[in-house]
Amino acid sequence: MHDHDSVRPVRWSEGRLLLLDQRRLPAVVEDVVCADHQAVARAIEQMVVRGAPAIGIAAAYGAVLAARDCLSRGRADWEQALAELSAARPTAVNLAWALRRMAAVPLQGEVDPVQRLLDEAHAIASADLAANRRMGELGAALIQAPAGVLTHCNTGSLATGGFGTALGVIRQAWFEQRLSAVYADETRPWLQGARLTAWELLRDGIPVTLLADAAAPLLMREGRVQWVIVGADRITANGDVANKIGTYGLAVAARHHGVRFMVVAPSSTVDMALADGNAIPIEHRASDEVLFAGGQRIAADGARGWNPVFDVTPADLVDVLVTECGVIHRPDAERMAAVFERDTVRRNQ
Amino acid sequence: MHDHDSVRPVRWSEGRLLLLDQRRLPAVVEDVVCADHQAVARAIEQMVVRGAPAIGIAAAYGAVLAARDCLSRGRADWEQALAELSAARPTAVNLAWALRRMAAVPLQGEVDPVQRLLDEAHAIASADLAANRRMGELGAALIQAPAGVLTHCNTGSLATGGFGTALGVIRQAWFEQRLSAVYADETRPWLQGARLTAWELLRDGIPVTLLADAAAPLLMREGRVQWVIVGADRITANGDVANKIGTYGLAVAARHHGVRFMVVAPSSTVDMALADGNAIPIEHRASDEVLFAGGQRIAADGARGWNPVFDVTPADLVDVLVTECGVIHRPDAERMAAVFERDTVRRNQ
Repeated sequence: MHDHDSVRPVRWSEGRLLLLDQRRLPAVVEDVVCADHQAVARAIEQMVVRGAPAIGIAAAYGAVLAARDCLSRGRADWEQALAELSAARPTAVNLAWALRRMAAVPLQGEVDPVQRLLDEAHAIASADLAANRRMGELGAALIQAPAGVLTHCNTGSLATGGFGTALGVIRQAWFEQRLSAVYADETRPWLQGARLTAWELLRDGIPVTLLADAAAPLLMREGRVQWVIVGADRITANGDVANKIGTYGLAVAARHHGVRFMVVAPSSTVDMALADGNAIPIEHRASDEVLFAGGQRIAADGARGWNPVFDVTPADLVDVLVTECGVIHRPDAERMAAVFERDTVRRNQ
Repeated sequence: MHDHDSVRPVRWSEGRLLLLDQRRLPAVVEDVVCADHQAVARAIEQMVVRGAPAIGIAAAYGAVLAARDCLSRGRADWEQALAELSAARPTAVNLAWALRRMAAVPLQGEVDPVQRLLDEAHAIASADLAANRRMGELGAALIQAPAGVLTHCNTGSLATGGFGTALGVIRQAWFEQRLSAVYADETRPWLQGARLTAWELLRDGIPVTLLADAAAPLLMREGRVQWVIVGADRITANGDVANKIGTYGLAVAARHHGVRFMVVAPSSTVDMALADGNAIPIEHRASDEVLFAGGQRIAADGARGWNPVFDVTPADLVDVLVTECGVIHRPDAERMAAVFERDTVRRNQ
C-alpha cells in the first residue's frame, strides 16, 4: 500500500481499459471499465481520468479499443474514432500528441495491427513513467534543503503514467530529505489537491498540509515555502504554461514574494506549434462545479458561475521548466527552441 | 422581499437577541435566539453571526443581556461578562470597540441602566447603517461607468447593521448604473461569497457571477474587472488592512494588473493603537473547515489543514480607503492620522 507505484489511474486488463474513478476518491476507490473507445472518450470528458499525461495514455488505449472495433470496417471509422477521443477535452495537448503517435503506427505487415497499437500504448505509458522519474531527479536537485514547497492540483501518479510530474519532484525531494514541509492547495472547484494529492502523498508516508487556495499568498508572506511546484497541460513555443486554474495567481504571488516557481512536465506537453499562450484553447466547464461543493449546492438559486478550468502563466513568471529533456531556466522562445528542436532531431534519428 | 433593508442579521426583540444563523444560509433561513450573553459569545465564536460590524453590534446587545443578569450582582460580574464577549473572536476590532462604548455608558442616574445600555446598542446599530449608506455614496462616486467589480467574502447587510460596507458600495454603484458586472469570490473555506453575498445580491435583483477564489487573477487578466472592493476587520494606524483570507492575494494580483483596490470599512474598524498590520492577532480556526466542504469530508484521512481566517494587506497595495469620515487615497500613517485624529476630536466634542 505504501509503494507509490501501486497507484495506476490507467490499466489495461484482458482487452479492456480500467480507469480509477477520480471523481470518487478518496472516499471510494473504484474502477470504471471501458470496453470501447466511446466509453474512454466519455470518461475523459467526465474526468473519471484527468491530468494531462494520464489523459494522453488513456486516449492511446482508447485508440486500441477503437482499432479493434473499427479497423475491419475501414480507415474512415478508425480516424473518426481518433477524432472523437481527441475532442474529449481541449486544453491538454498530451491528448492530441498521444493520438498522433497512435495514428502514425504502421498497420500493414505481419503483426496484428491491434497488437502493434497496444504495444505503442504500453510504450507511451512506460515512457511517461520513465520521464517522470527523470524529471523527479532533475527537479529535486534544484531544491536546496530544507525547503517548504507548495503545489497545486494533482500532478502525481493519478495524473500520469506513474510517480508524477510536479508531485514526482516533490516525492523525490522528500526521499532525498530536502523538504521541511509539503503544502497543497485544495484546488477548487474540483478539489484535486484535497481529494487526490493528499491521498497520494499520505500513501507514501509524506505528511501534507492542505490550505484554501486563497491562503497561498499568506503562506508565502510568512516564509513557509521557498518553491511553488506545478505541472502543465500545455506549454507553448515561448514557454507560456497552461495549467489548472489558480496557477497563474500563484506565479504572480510567488514573484511578488521572491518564491521560486517551477513547472514540471514531460516533452509531450510542449506544443511548439503554438507561438504563445494566447493561442491555447481554455476549457470552461459547467458552472455547477462552482455552485456546488462536496455534492451540496452552496450558492443561492439564481447565482451564475464562471468556471474556467485552466489559466495561462506567462513564461516570464516561470523560474525554471523541468522536462525529461533537461532543465530550462527562465524559459523563452530561444531557450525552448534550443531544447525542443534538438530533441525532435534526436527522436527522429 | 426585494428591499435590502429587510435583511437584518442582528435583531433585538422582546428582551432577547435574534441572530440570523449564517452557518445555514442560503438553504435554511432561521434565527438563533440568545437569552444571555454567554449565548451571544458562543454565537459569535461559532459564526452564527459574522462580519466585523455585525459582530460589534451583536456584542453590544450581548452587553445589554449581561447587564440585565449581572449588574445587580455588582460591577465585577458585568466586567467579566464584557471580557467574555470580547474574547469570542480576536481579529475584528469592532468587537472591542463596541464593548468599550458599552462600558463607557454611565450607569448611575434616574434612567434604568439596562435601558441606557439598550439605547446605546441601538445607537451603535443605527450609526453603522448610516455609516454604510454614507460609504456607499462615497465609494460609488469613485467608480467610473461601466465597470466590472470583484468582491470577496460577505460585506453586506448580513455583515453589518444594514446595507453593507464593500457590498454597500457595490449596491449603490449598481443603483447608479455604474456597473457592468458583479463578480464574487466563493471565499473558501466558509463560502461566504457563494452562500451569503450571492443570496443578498439576488434578493436585491443584482445579478452576480461566482468564481473559485483561484480564478480571480484570470478574471483580472481578461480585463473583466476594473475594481476589487473589499471590507476590513481591522485597519491599523499606517493603513494596513486585516480582512478575510484571500484579500491579500487579490491585492497583489490587482496591483499586477493595474486593477484598482478599494477597502470600505466604518471608522469603528480603525485601530489607531496599532502601528501596523504585524501587530494584528490573526485568528486560525479548526482545520476541519479546510478538510470538509459542503458538509462532506473531502480530504484523505491523515491530511492536516492550515486555516488562517484573515490576512493582512499592506497599505501600499490599497488604492483607496473609504470610511464614513471620508475617502483616503493611497493610505499611509500621515493620511490616516489626518482623518482619524480629527475624527476623534470631533467625536469628543
